[in-house]
Amino acid sequence: MKPTVYMEEMDAFTYREKLKRDAVVFVPVGALEQHGSHMAMCVDAALTKAMAGATAQALTDSDEDALEGIVAAPINYGYRSQQRSGGGFHLSGTTSLRGSTLIALARDIVFSLVRQGARKIVLMNGHYENYQFVFEGAQLALEDARKEGAGDARIQLLSYWDFVDDATIAKLYPDGFTGWDLEHAGVMETSLMLLFYPDLVDMDKVDDPLYEGLPAELPNYDVLPIVADYTPPSGCLSSPAASSRDKGVVLRDVAVRNMVDAIRAEFA
Amino acid sequence: MKPTVYMEEMDAFTYREKLKRDAVVFVPVGALEQHGSHMAMCVDAALTKAMAGATAQALTDSDEDALEGIVAAPINYGYRSQQRSGGGFHLSGTTSLRGSTLIALARDIVFSLVRQGARKIVLMNGHYENYQFVFEGAQLALEDARKEGAGDARIQLLSYWDFVDDATIAKLYPDGFTGWDLEHAGVMETSLMLLFYPDLVDMDKVDDPLYEGLPAELPNYDVLPIVADYTPPSGCLSSPAASSRDKGVVLRDVAVRNMVDAIRAEFA
Amino acid sequence: MKPTVYMEEMDAFTYREKLKRDAVVFVPVGALEQHGSHMAMCVDAALTKAMAGATAQALTDSDEDALEGIVAAPINYGYRSQQRSGGGFHLSGTTSLRGSTLIALARDIVFSLVRQGARKIVLMNGHYENYQFVFEGAQLALEDARKEGAGDARIQLLSYWDFVDDATIAKLYPDGFTGWDLEHAGVMETSLMLLFYPDLVDMDKVDDPLYEGLPAELPNYDVLPIVADYTPPSGCLSSPAASSRDKGVVLRDVAVRNMVDAIRAEFA
Amino acid sequence: MKPTVYMEEMDAFTYREKLKRDAVVFVPVGALEQHGSHMAMCVDAALTKAMAGATAQALTDSDEDALEGIVAAPINYGYRSQQRSGGGFHLSGTTSLRGSTLIALARDIVFSLVRQGARKIVLMNGHYENYQFVFEGAQLALEDARKEGAGDARIQLLSYWDFVDDATIAKLYPDGFTGWDLEHAGVMETSLMLLFYPDLVDMDKVDDPLYEGLPAELPNYDVLPIVADYTPPSGCLSSPAASSRDKGVVLRDVAVRNMVDAIRAEFA
Amino acid sequence: MKPTVYMEEMDAFTYREKLKRDAVVFVPVGALEQHGSHMAMCVDAALTKAMAGATAQALTDSDEDALEGIVAAPINYGYRSQQRSGGGFHLSGTTSLRGSTLIALARDIVFSLVRQGARKIVLMNGHYENYQFVFEGAQLALEDARKEGAGDARIQLLSYWDFVDDATIAKLYPDGFTGWDLEHAGVMETSLMLLFYPDLVDMDKVDDPLYEGLPAELPNYDVLPIVADYTPPSGCLSSPAASSRDKGVVLRDVAVRNMVDAIRAEFA
Amino acid sequence: MKPTVYMEEMDAFTYREKLKRDAVVFVPVGALEQHGSHMAMCVDAALTKAMAGATAQALTDSDEDALEGIVAAPINYGYRSQQRSGGGFHLSGTTSLRGSTLIALARDIVFSLVRQGARKIVLMNGHYENYQFVFEGAQLALEDARKEGAGDARIQLLSYWDFVDDATIAKLYPDGFTGWDLEHAGVMETSLMLLFYPDLVDMDKVDDPLYEGLPAELPNYDVLPIVADYTPPSGCLSSPAASSRDKGVVLRDVAVRNMVDAIRAEFA
Repeated sequence: MKPTVYMEEMDAFTYREKLKRDAVVFVPVGALEQHGSHMAMCVDAALTKAMAGATAQALTDSDEDALEGIVAAPINYGYRSQQRSGGGFHLSGTTSLRGSTLIALARDIVFSLVRQGARKIVLMNGHYENYQFVFEGAQLALEDARKEGAGDARIQLLSYWDFVDDATIAKLYPDGFTGWDLEHAGVMETSLMLLFYPDLVDMDKVDDPLYEGLPAELPNYDVLPIVADYTPPSGCLSSPAASSRDKGVVLRDVAVRNMVDAIRAEFA
Repeated sequence: MKPTVYMEEMDAFTYREKLKRDAVVFVPVGALEQHGSHMAMCVDAALTKAMAGATAQALTDSDEDALEGIVAAPINYGYRSQQRSGGGFHLSGTTSLRGSTLIALARDIVFSLVRQGARKIVLMNGHYENYQFVFEGAQLALEDARKEGAGDARIQLLSYWDFVDDATIAKLYPDGFTGWDLEHAGVMETSLMLLFYPDLVDMDKVDDPLYEGLPAELPNYDVLPIVADYTPPSGCLSSPAASSRDKGVVLRDVAVRNMVDAIRAEFA
Repeated sequence: MKPTVYMEEMDAFTYREKLKRDAVVFVPVGALEQHGSHMAMCVDAALTKAMAGATAQALTDSDEDALEGIVAAPINYGYRSQQRSGGGFHLSGTTSLRGSTLIALARDIVFSLVRQGARKIVLMNGHYENYQFVFEGAQLALEDARKEGAGDARIQLLSYWDFVDDATIAKLYPDGFTGWDLEHAGVMETSLMLLFYPDLVDMDKVDDPLYEGLPAELPNYDVLPIVADYTPPSGCLSSPAASSRDKGVVLRDVAVRNMVDAIRAEFA
Repeated sequence: MKPTVYMEEMDAFTYREKLKRDAVVFVPVGALEQHGSHMAMCVDAALTKAMAGATAQALTDSDEDALEGIVAAPINYGYRSQQRSGGGFHLSGTTSLRGSTLIALARDIVFSLVRQGARKIVLMNGHYENYQFVFEGAQLALEDARKEGAGDARIQLLSYWDFVDDATIAKLYPDGFTGWDLEHAGVMETSLMLLFYPDLVDMDKVDDPLYEGLPAELPNYDVLPIVADYTPPSGCLSSPAASSRDKGVVLRDVAVRNMVDAIRAEFA
Repeated sequence: MKPTVYMEEMDAFTYREKLKRDAVVFVPVGALEQHGSHMAMCVDAALTKAMAGATAQALTDSDEDALEGIVAAPINYGYRSQQRSGGGFHLSGTTSLRGSTLIALARDIVFSLVRQGARKIVLMNGHYENYQFVFEGAQLALEDARKEGAGDARIQLLSYWDFVDDATIAKLYPDGFTGWDLEHAGVMETSLMLLFYPDLVDMDKVDDPLYEGLPAELPNYDVLPIVADYTPPSGCLSSPAASSRDKGVVLRDVAVRNMVDAIRAEFA
Repeated sequence: MKPTVYMEEMDAFTYREKLKRDAVVFVPVGALEQHGSHMAMCVDAALTKAMAGATAQALTDSDEDALEGIVAAPINYGYRSQQRSGGGFHLSGTTSLRGSTLIALARDIVFSLVRQGARKIVLMNGHYENYQFVFEGAQLALEDARKEGAGDARIQLLSYWDFVDDATIAKLYPDGFTGWDLEHAGVMETSLMLLFYPDLVDMDKVDDPLYEGLPAELPNYDVLPIVADYTPPSGCLSSPAASSRDKGVVLRDVAVRNMVDAIRAEFA
C-alpha cells in the first residue's frame, strides 16, 4: 500500500504510528445533494474530502514543524438543505439527516477518534447547513472525552471557503460576490470540481435555460413547508458559468495555505 | 458525465429520471475499521459499495425485466466492532458509532429517499455488527413514511456474504469454513479487496508472525470492558493467506447473481 | 384586562377568539447571556419579545388586511453562545441549552400552537446561535402536525436584524458595519435596549478600559474547548459607544416595517 | 442599573460577584396555560417568578446569615396540563412540552448554572404537572456535573404552595380545602395574581355562569385521549370567587417565610 | 393450558380470540425496590400484577356486560424512588430507570398492544413515582397510534390505591392516615403482600429497632444529591406493624370493586 | 422468607449482604411473544429467568470458590421479533420494544446495579433479536459507571443456548440442527418449558395442521413491511414435536454447567 493521508486507504498499524506522532485528524463533513444538472451530487462530500486531503498533505510535507495529517472517512450525508443556501430539502436527490442525527454522528466520530488517541482534530465542513450541528456534536464529544481522561483533546471547526481571502474573492468574482451561502453549485464549487473531479462536471449544461436568472433572489427568511417556487429551476443559487479549472487551482491554493496557517496556529 | 449506477456521480436530473422509472436504490452500510496490517481500513464500506455497484449494474443490464439500480453514498461508519466478529472496538483505527446513532442514520437516509420517491430500497450491509441497528432504522423510516402517504415503500435488508452459497463455500474453504462472523479480514474480504481495490491490499504482510494462530478461538460470549487478550495481535479473526483475486471473482459473481435473484423476487 | 398582543397577558377565551380569526402567532426565541457590563443579561429574550410585540401590534393596527398578531411567551434560554457571535459559552452568566434541547423546545411549542388551531406562526429569533436548531424544531413540528390533520400550518422563520436594510445600516454605522454576528452587545442591541428597557442599560460603563480594542478580531474558525483569550474582556464583540435611543427608534421602525411586509407576503 | 435579585435584569459582572459569594440561584418553572376567563395565561410562570423574587429578596435582606438570592429567567412553558390538576392539555391556550423536553430543559439550565459556579440551586415549581420531570432533569444535571468536578453542587426542589401551612389553609379556606391539585385558577392563584399582577385579573368574570358548579368533581384516574366533558367550561377546577389581594398577602408572606427557613436549613 | 387472565400464561391464539372480543388489556407498572427488611423487593410489580389479575378476573366473571380482561406482563422496573414516597434511589436494592426510559417503555408497550388490536387499555400503576412518566408514554403512544389508523384506542391510567375509599381508610387506619405517598412498605402494601404472597413477608422483622420512629417525618421538598439521613433506617416510611391478611382482603375487595366500576364507566 | 437466588423474592438487607460478598448479579432479558398455539407467550422471559436461576444456584452451591449468584427481575419485553428468528413483529401477541428503548432499559438496569455495588454482572439473553441492543446498553452503562468511580465493574453477555455443546446438539437433533435462530418455539424451548413450566405447554396442539411444513424455509434477508406469508401459520419456525421433559433436563444441565464454567473463567 502506498503512502497516503487518507485513513480509509491506510492499514491500522500505519495509522497507529501516525497517531503516536500526534497527527492532526481531519473529518470532512459533506452532504449528498443536488447541485444542478451540470454537476454530480457528491460535491459537498467529495470536495471537502479533497480539500482536507490537500491540507493534510501540505501539513505533512512542510518542513516548518513536525505536524502531519490524516483524513478520516467523510461524513457523506448532511443536514437538510435550506432554500437560502442549498435550494431546499424538498428537491429530489438531496438526501437529508435530521439535526439530532448529525449531532450524534459528529459526536460519535470525534469521541471515537479521541478514544483512539487523537488529540488534534479538525472538523472541516463543506455543506453550509451543517455547521451548528457539527459544533454541537464536537462539544458533546469533548464532554464525554473528559470523563475518559482525555481532557487534552482539542477540536478546530471550520468551513473551507472561509479561508478564501478577500483579495482572491475580488479577483475571482469581478462582478461582485454574493456570499458563500449563495455559492451553492456556483463558481467556487464548480471550479473546484473541475480541478478535482472533472469527469463529474458538464459545463455544457450551463447554457440551458434552466440556468437563467441567477443569482437567485431569495427572501431574508425561511418558510416551512418550503415554497418550491423560491428555488431556481436548476437548483443552483448562483451561476457556475464563469467557472474554470484555473479558478479551482487558485481557490484550492489560497484556502489550503490559509488553513495550514490556522491549523498551525492552534496545534503546532 | 458518463452513465453510472452511483448516485454520488450522477446529477440530480438524471437521478430523478431513474427514480421515475422506479429504480431500486441501494444503500451500502459499512464501517471504518482495522483489518489487520495487510489491508486498508475502508474494507467494509468500500467492498459493500463495490458489491452494491456490481449488483445494481447487473440488475440494470439484464433484459429480464425493467428493473434498474442506483447506489446511494455509503454509510462510512458503523456500529462498534465486537470481538467475536471484528476484533473489538478498543482497537485504534476502528471508529465506532453508538447504536442509537446508526439507527438514526439508517432511518433518516431511508426516509429521505422515500420522500424523494424511492419505493424499492435495498439496505446492503457489509459490517457484521450493523445489522440489527439498520433493521430498526428501516422500520422507523417506514413508520414515518406512512404518515407522509408513502405506505407503499418497501425495504429489503441483507448482508452480501449471505448470498455466497454452500457449494461455493465448500470450494473456497477446502479446510472448512468457520462462519461469516470470523471472516473479519479473512479470505472472503481479502479476496474481494484483491479484486476491487488491489492497491489497498499487501499480501506480503500476511507472512508476519502477527498472523499466526488463526483462526482465532473466541469465547461464546462477550465481556465488557473488552479483554484485549482475546483478540489476535493482527486484529484478523481468520487467516487471509489463501486469498486470491480469482476467489474474489467467484465470490462476487455468485453473490451478485444470487442477490439479483433475491431482489427480483421482491421487487420485479 | 386591557387589550394586548401578548398571549401571557391575555385570558384563554380572548386568545381563542383571536385564533379563530386566524391570527399570526409569534414565538420570540432568545437567550440568557452576558452582554458586557453595560447591559442586563435578558437582552436576547427581552428585545425579541419587544420586537415581536411591536410587529404584532403594527400588523393588528394596519387597515390593509385583516391580519392580527399574538406574541407567545418567549423562549428565555438559547443555544450555547459561540465566540464568534456571542463571546462564548464559557462565560459566567451565559446559560446554555444543548442543541437537542432547543430543537425539542421549538418543536413542542410550535406543535402545541398548531394543535390549538394556529396556522400562521412566526418564529422570531434574537440570538444568533439559535437559528439552525429552531429551524429543525419547526420542521419536526410540521411533520408531526401533518399526522394530526394540520397540514395547512405554515411557519416563517426570521431574525429581526435581517430586516434592517442596507440604507439604514449605512446611516447607523458610518464607520463601517462588521456584520450581525459581531453585533453582540454592540450598537444595535444597545440602542434597542435604550429604547425598550432604558433601566437595563448603563452607558457610563462603556468608558471602562474593559471596552477598549473593539470590534473584536476573531479567527475564522471555532476551537473547542474554548480559548478564553479570544474573547474581549467585556464580552462584547463590537463597541456600544455610539448607541442611542434615537438609533433604537430607527432600527425598530425599519425592522418592524420590513417584517410586517414579509409577514404579509407570506400570510395575507 | 438598579440592584435586583433578577438575573435577567442584572449585568454579568454583578452576577459573577454574587456567584462568588455563593448565592442561591432560583429557577422558576412555570407554564403558559389557560386559567379561566378571569386571569391571564402567564399565571404559573409569572407567580413563580414573583414568589422566587420575594424569597430571594427575603433571603438577601435577612441579617441571620450571609445567604443571598438570584432568580434566573423563568421556564415559561411546562408539561402537558392534566385534567385533574389543570383542566387538560386539549384546551386552547394551554401550550405544552413533552416530558422529555422538560427533562432536558431543566437538566441543561441546572448544568449550565453549575458550570458557571452555582452550587446552591432552588428549582421552584409553579405548575403542578412539572414536578417529576424537573426532578429527573435535576438528577441528570448532577450526574453530568460530577464529571466536570462539581460534585458539591446541591439542588432543592419545591413547589411554593407546599409552604402554605395548615393553619393558613384553615383560615383561607373556611369551607374546606380540596387540595393543591384542584387549586388550578382557584383562590390561591387568583389571590396571588391580585397581589402581584392585578391588571391581569378581572374578578367580574367570575360571576359568569361559566364559573358555576365548582369545585370540579373529577374521576380518580386519567383517560387518554382526554374526555373534554370532565373539565368545567371555565377551565378552572375550583372557584376563585373568594379571592382577594389580602389573601394574596397572607399566602405570599407565609410561603416566603417557610421557604426561607427551608432554604436556610439546607444551604446555610 | 388452563384458562387465565395472564397474557404471559396464555398462548397467542387464545389471546387473539380475546382481543377480537375487544378485551381490556391491563399493563401493571411496578418497580424493583427495597421494602424494608420484612418484605421482598418485588412488592410494587408483584402486587400490581395481582391487583390487575383480580380486577381482570372480576371484570371477566361479571354478568353485567361482555367486558373481559387480560393482564400483560408487568413492567418490573420503575422510576427512581424518591425519599418522600419510597425512601430514595440511593438505597441498595432499589433499581431505577431514568424518566426517559420509563416513558419509552410505556409508549412502546401501549403502541404495540394497539397495533395488535387492543383498543381498551388500563395502565395500572403500583409505584408512586412512576405516574407522570407513564402518562407521558401513553400520550405518545396514542399520537403514534393515530397515524397507524388506530385513533379509537383509549387508555385509562390509575394507581390502585386511589380506589380504596375514605370509609375503608378510616377503618383500616384508626390512628389516622398519613397519605399514600408515605404508605411505602406500610400497612397497605404489607397487608396485600400477606394476602397474595405471604411467603415474601416476615412480620417478625417488624419488631426490630430498625422500625422505630415511624411514620417518617420528611421535609416538604426534595434535595439532590439525596440526604441519606432523611430516610428511616428500615427504608419504610410508615409502620407495617398493624398489617394483616384480613386487611389485605378488605383492601383488595374494595379497590377491585371500585376499579371495575371505573373501568366499566369508561369502556362498557 | 426462605433463601433464594431471586432478587425479587429477597429483602433488601439480605441482598446487601450478598452484594458485599461480591455476588454475581444475573439480569434475564426476555420477551413477550407468540410461541405457537402449544405454548404460553412468556417463554423467552420465563425460561431465561429459570435458566439464570439454575445457573445462579449452581454457582452458589458449588464448593470450588466463593462465588454466589443473584437473579434480578427479568426484562419482560424484548426487541421486535424478526421473521427469520421469531416469526415477525406483525403477529398479534408479540409485544415489541423499539431498539432505543431496549438499549436504555439495559443501560439503566446495569448502571443502577453498579451504583448499588454490583461489580460482576451477567446479562443472560433469551430472545434472539435482543442481543445487539443489550450489548449497546451494557457498554453505555459502563461508560456512565466510570464517571461514578466504578470503573471496575464487569459485564458478561451471553445467550443461554450458545452453551449447549455440539455433542448435545447432535444427540438431541438426530435429524440435523437448523440453527438457534430457527429454534423459535421448537425442540429446545419446548423441552425446557416442559421441564420448568409444564402447565404452560400443551403438546396435543402440535398435531394440528398448523404445525405442518416445519422447519420454515425463510429467505436469507429481511423485508419490511413484513411479508406475512413467509411465516408459517403456527408462528413456530421449527417443529416442537420431538420435545420432551427429558430433553429439557439435558439442555438445562449442559447449558448450566457450561455457563457456570464461563462465569468462573471471567469472575472467579
